[in-house]
Amino acid sequence: MRAQGDDDMNEMLSFDSDYMEGAHAEILRRLTDTNMEQTAGYGLDPYSEAAREKIRKACRAPHAEIHFLSGGTQTNRIVISALLRPYEGVIAADTGHISVHEAGAIEAGGHKVLALPHADGKLSAEAIEGCLRAYHEDANRDHMVRPGMVYLSHPTEYGTLYTMDALEVISVVCRTNRIPLFLDGARLAYALGCDANELTLPAIARLCDAFYIGGTKCGALLGEAVVFPKQGTVPHFFTIVKQSGALLAKGRVLGIQFDTLFTDGLYERGGAHAIRMADRIRTALTEHGYTLAPFAPTNQIFLALNPAQLARLSAHVAMGFWEKQGDVTIMRIATSWATREEDVERLIAVL
Amino acid sequence: MRAQGDDDMNEMLSFDSDYMEGAHAEILRRLTDTNMEQTAGYGLDPYSEAAREKIRKACRAPHAEIHFLSGGTQTNRIVISALLRPYEGVIAADTGHISVHEAGAIEAGGHKVLALPHADGKLSAEAIEGCLRAYHEDANRDHMVRPGMVYLSHPTEYGTLYTMDALEVISVVCRTNRIPLFLDGARLAYALGCDANELTLPAIARLCDAFYIGGTKCGALLGEAVVFPKQGTVPHFFTIVKQSGALLAKGRVLGIQFDTLFTDGLYERGGAHAIRMADRIRTALTEHGYTLAPFAPTNQIFLALNPAQLARLSAHVAMGFWEKQGDVTIMRIATSWATREEDVERLIAVL
Amino acid sequence: MRAQGDDDMNEMLSFDSDYMEGAHAEILRRLTDTNMEQTAGYGLDPYSEAAREKIRKACRAPHAEIHFLSGGTQTNRIVISALLRPYEGVIAADTGHISVHEAGAIEAGGHKVLALPHADGKLSAEAIEGCLRAYHEDANRDHMVRPGMVYLSHPTEYGTLYTMDALEVISVVCRTNRIPLFLDGARLAYALGCDANELTLPAIARLCDAFYIGGTKCGALLGEAVVFPKQGTVPHFFTIVKQSGALLAKGRVLGIQFDTLFTDGLYERGGAHAIRMADRIRTALTEHGYTLAPFAPTNQIFLALNPAQLARLSAHVAMGFWEKQGDVTIMRIATSWATREEDVERLIAVL
Amino acid sequence: MRAQGDDDMNEMLSFDSDYMEGAHAEILRRLTDTNMEQTAGYGLDPYSEAAREKIRKACRAPHAEIHFLSGGTQTNRIVISALLRPYEGVIAADTGHISVHEAGAIEAGGHKVLALPHADGKLSAEAIEGCLRAYHEDANRDHMVRPGMVYLSHPTEYGTLYTMDALEVISVVCRTNRIPLFLDGARLAYALGCDANELTLPAIARLCDAFYIGGTKCGALLGEAVVFPKQGTVPHFFTIVKQSGALLAKGRVLGIQFDTLFTDGLYERGGAHAIRMADRIRTALTEHGYTLAPFAPTNQIFLALNPAQLARLSAHVAMGFWEKQGDVTIMRIATSWATREEDVERLIAVL
Repeated sequence: MRAQGDDDMNEMLSFDSDYMEGAHAEILRRLTDTNMEQTAGYGLDPYSEAAREKIRKACRAPHAEIHFLSGGTQTNRIVISALLRPYEGVIAADTGHISVHEAGAIEAGGHKVLALPHADGKLSAEAIEGCLRAYHEDANRDHMVRPGMVYLSHPTEYGTLYTMDALEVISVVCRTNRIPLFLDGARLAYALGCDANELTLPAIARLCDAFYIGGTKCGALLGEAVVFPKQGTVPHFFTIVKQSGALLAKGRVLGIQFDTLFTDGLYERGGAHAIRMADRIRTALTEHGYTLAPFAPTNQIFLALNPAQLARLSAHVAMGFWEKQGDVTIMRIATSWATREEDVERLIAVL
Repeated sequence: MRAQGDDDMNEMLSFDSDYMEGAHAEILRRLTDTNMEQTAGYGLDPYSEAAREKIRKACRAPHAEIHFLSGGTQTNRIVISALLRPYEGVIAADTGHISVHEAGAIEAGGHKVLALPHADGKLSAEAIEGCLRAYHEDANRDHMVRPGMVYLSHPTEYGTLYTMDALEVISVVCRTNRIPLFLDGARLAYALGCDANELTLPAIARLCDAFYIGGTKCGALLGEAVVFPKQGTVPHFFTIVKQSGALLAKGRVLGIQFDTLFTDGLYERGGAHAIRMADRIRTALTEHGYTLAPFAPTNQIFLALNPAQLARLSAHVAMGFWEKQGDVTIMRIATSWATREEDVERLIAVL
Repeated sequence: MRAQGDDDMNEMLSFDSDYMEGAHAEILRRLTDTNMEQTAGYGLDPYSEAAREKIRKACRAPHAEIHFLSGGTQTNRIVISALLRPYEGVIAADTGHISVHEAGAIEAGGHKVLALPHADGKLSAEAIEGCLRAYHEDANRDHMVRPGMVYLSHPTEYGTLYTMDALEVISVVCRTNRIPLFLDGARLAYALGCDANELTLPAIARLCDAFYIGGTKCGALLGEAVVFPKQGTVPHFFTIVKQSGALLAKGRVLGIQFDTLFTDGLYERGGAHAIRMADRIRTALTEHGYTLAPFAPTNQIFLALNPAQLARLSAHVAMGFWEKQGDVTIMRIATSWATREEDVERLIAVL
Repeated sequence: MRAQGDDDMNEMLSFDSDYMEGAHAEILRRLTDTNMEQTAGYGLDPYSEAAREKIRKACRAPHAEIHFLSGGTQTNRIVISALLRPYEGVIAADTGHISVHEAGAIEAGGHKVLALPHADGKLSAEAIEGCLRAYHEDANRDHMVRPGMVYLSHPTEYGTLYTMDALEVISVVCRTNRIPLFLDGARLAYALGCDANELTLPAIARLCDAFYIGGTKCGALLGEAVVFPKQGTVPHFFTIVKQSGALLAKGRVLGIQFDTLFTDGLYERGGAHAIRMADRIRTALTEHGYTLAPFAPTNQIFLALNPAQLARLSAHVAMGFWEKQGDVTIMRIATSWATREEDVERLIAVL
């Protein structure tokens, strides 16, 4: 028993990220079951088509055009390039994934990220309007990058959520200015599975011109489902995907996964599990006097740790490093569809 | 029984391509077995590292740098862009995949494909040398695209194979001209599993500056292993991959597959199976008086069909359409690691 | 006198190209006269506006949008990129300037040049239609570059001219296929000043969607006038020009030149002078038994020289080297607005 | 006389920018004198070579490689793209020309501008070091844009000047980090002609890896001279220029201008004249109680105007609008090589 106890003490708990495991067991089961079937390539197989149909229903967008891509940076780069004209840039929060952590993918595609100050990881309609107004009032605007679309993440990189009101107003700003609104849903399951979330898939499909439903961080091996609620938003998007090197020959690998995720509510259930695990950790952290970032109800927990707390936790738990603010260190704990309750208990035990 | 017989007659046989099934059963088993393990992302996991080590051994290239990407077009675009300077183009056969069927991916990356006439899908050292000489002798060369690398496929898009001699000479031409040689091995298993093939992995690693070992068409769900035999060939290639949207968060999905393919010779065994199946079909076709493209000993069979032959075969077998030459239609039959012997027998029965 | 005579014999005559001198004297006079006037920058000055108005009149295109750029490669790259979507390429003759002598500028802008075989430097409507049909009939077209526009030169790089019929038919093909037609008029003065030419500026403006009137090779220090006969063809073209680094702060330098070229027919007069000079040389060459390329009535004369002829001419005349065809060398003699009659006489004297 | 006086009152004075006139009279004289000479194209003419030699001498950089381009945005885009690898970005002040007023030219070339907060328009070595350190210490740096070079303007967009000490330290930071330092000298004449300036051409050539000597804003019709103090800094830069559409066929148009500017100190004399004019205006403004931006001793004067001052000045003087700060409006008065003393007197008369 002692040895076991020691082992437990020594073995690190991993709460670094939400992409450390494989996929929902059901996904692997279906990949295995269908393995030797012969299907058409490039997403023209029946599984991909079934997945599209389920997503259209979930979004109440019967004419939506849906494409399956492999990862978030790939999706952001391709969708943004496809929606912008060469002289346009994309408005994003300065904390947005495209602003910082995509190795310049948007710029490599030829476009400037017009980074605006965030509030808890979110863009405000006021900030967007201010940016658009400043551009249109600038006498030198023809020598400047034109703000050509808006990029949001939901949940944001800070684990926060837009309210329905906020998205409605941002959508109005975009439509008034005739620029598309694009929502990055890399972690969308963790919004949809969260009580505090107001944005349903139909609402997102109604208010955005393009968005993606994240698979990689939400229980798939890989895969993101790009949704254009209005057909023909980007002509020849298929060829753009091919040219970008993002078209999988065995497109069914993505189709089967999304078909599974959108069967019996698996996608939301996975998200809801992560939130329950995160809520237990949040409660325990608060009880133990830890300082949490406010307004972040999803699967990412941001902690402001003093040196003693940092030392204690780091000895047992692998977390994501966020930043240092003087003596205080901001760390991230992430739960996921795969988080085991016993690991949550063990984490709480070391607080 | 009759109904069954009718079904058999009515059911189309699929020999369109080598990417119609999922993956080797062993790959799915291992993905399932390791599914809930927690690993680092972005290819830094132990499975990816084990796969790299096995590939290094198979190539007898102990210092090779190896990266896992998702598909052929992606790999070609990224590797070619990474190896070329802005004013350079890539020499390829006019039948090369990058010349025709990648939707302009190479040009979208900023580079011209310098397409040379092929011989049975192959480039000759003479043609390459001629292109380089013409450039260097042209008084206007500073106003022209500089030939900056050579791209080969092995097997080629016509199912043909380079001899060792041919690759040696091409390699010498490239090294004399100080330009890298890149080999596209999207179907490499079907060369390695073929008696007629002379190019081993160590030979390729010795003679080329970059190449990739195809997974998608050779038994993986997706994935290509890029090999730079010499470390540091492309500094910061990892970030280039990220920027290109080609870095999978769950990199282990690729690592586990290549680890499996390079365990107990599965990669070559899958290739050899496809060749056995193709050889049986070739023999039967010849016996039945069909005209085959010569010099194509791998898993792709090109048939020159007269109208009657075309009608008869098309009624039972889905094939790939290649081109029309007057009355004659060129069609492709492809076998793969997954081809079932019973399907081969049924195909032969309808000849 | 002898010394002088020797000098004359020794001094090389220059007929290499049509951009060896500065500009029409009148252009320099007007640049000098207006030099200390203060005007707005970036082409918003009254001289640029006056030039635009004169060009609109000359083209009988009262709503044409006109922009002044600096050189041919720059113009081709910017106009082609602006007219194409990312997945599209440009159809051109394989002898087209963009195919060979622009150092990959079109590809650097992301687009493939779909080079078709030429006939005397010209594209035929049949070849264009064939390319479009082949694309649309190809089952794999979504994996291929879409032919998105047509590029012609008039005069061509071989000094030949399209007939009105030919341009009419090509224009119909383009409009039927809803792709723009772009005409490179780098040497347009030498067509307009040539009796054999059928294409007037109004005809070009009526049949093309974009074209440019070359200045650099036709008597300006630098400058090309891009004409979009239909306003709004490319929204925000000004900003695209700025982003491409092609917007001159002192745009009047271009405006004054085109204003001068389009005053009192200077542009056509310069062209006509070059043709007169070329015709005299052509006549003399024929009389002396030289072999000329046929169908090339403009300012470029292509000679097929045997070794003796080459040696004799090269001793006295700097010509442009074109290519070697066995023993025969193809050389180019170019006249221009600036060619001096006395130099023509001296050239004839050495034939 | 009264009518004349009225006219004077009504006629607007233009102090908007330093590119409202043509060029130094001497430049036009030499363009005219050499007009009918025949020279090689593309900058291979003797005038361009003479200009290069004079610039090498002025920089005391006998092996410097020098190329003539047409404008500032073009130069910045080409030089920056040529110096960076795809995954790298350029560090610049957030007020830098490339950050704001080049319509996204740098991003269109594929690179992110890493904008750092400025101090009076200048970057500090500390800020640069901080950016480099933050990158190198970031655990996610392989997912981020690598700071690959530093861009400075001298004088800056705010009319300020780097001290010799400041440039020395920045140069050390760059060399320690093995990244090139690039200085944008669009207005360099106005530094060189200014008593407060410490940076001579030899110092710039010693401390920077690339820089350009601005012609367009400093007395040329158009043109910027790019200097790479060390030969071979960018292999095949000529072809990169061609591919970018920036190579003038009549390169001598640029060569003659720089040859003239670097004869008898014309370049610096033009700058010194502008500074004398600006100093007189600055003195008068101060005497009349206007508030000037401090530390800006060159040809640009930034005024913080209250509404009454703004109304009074705007009635008589065309100025550049900079920004509004509540009630205060920041306007710019620019002098140049072409500013007439009588206009300065008239401006002072209306203060």
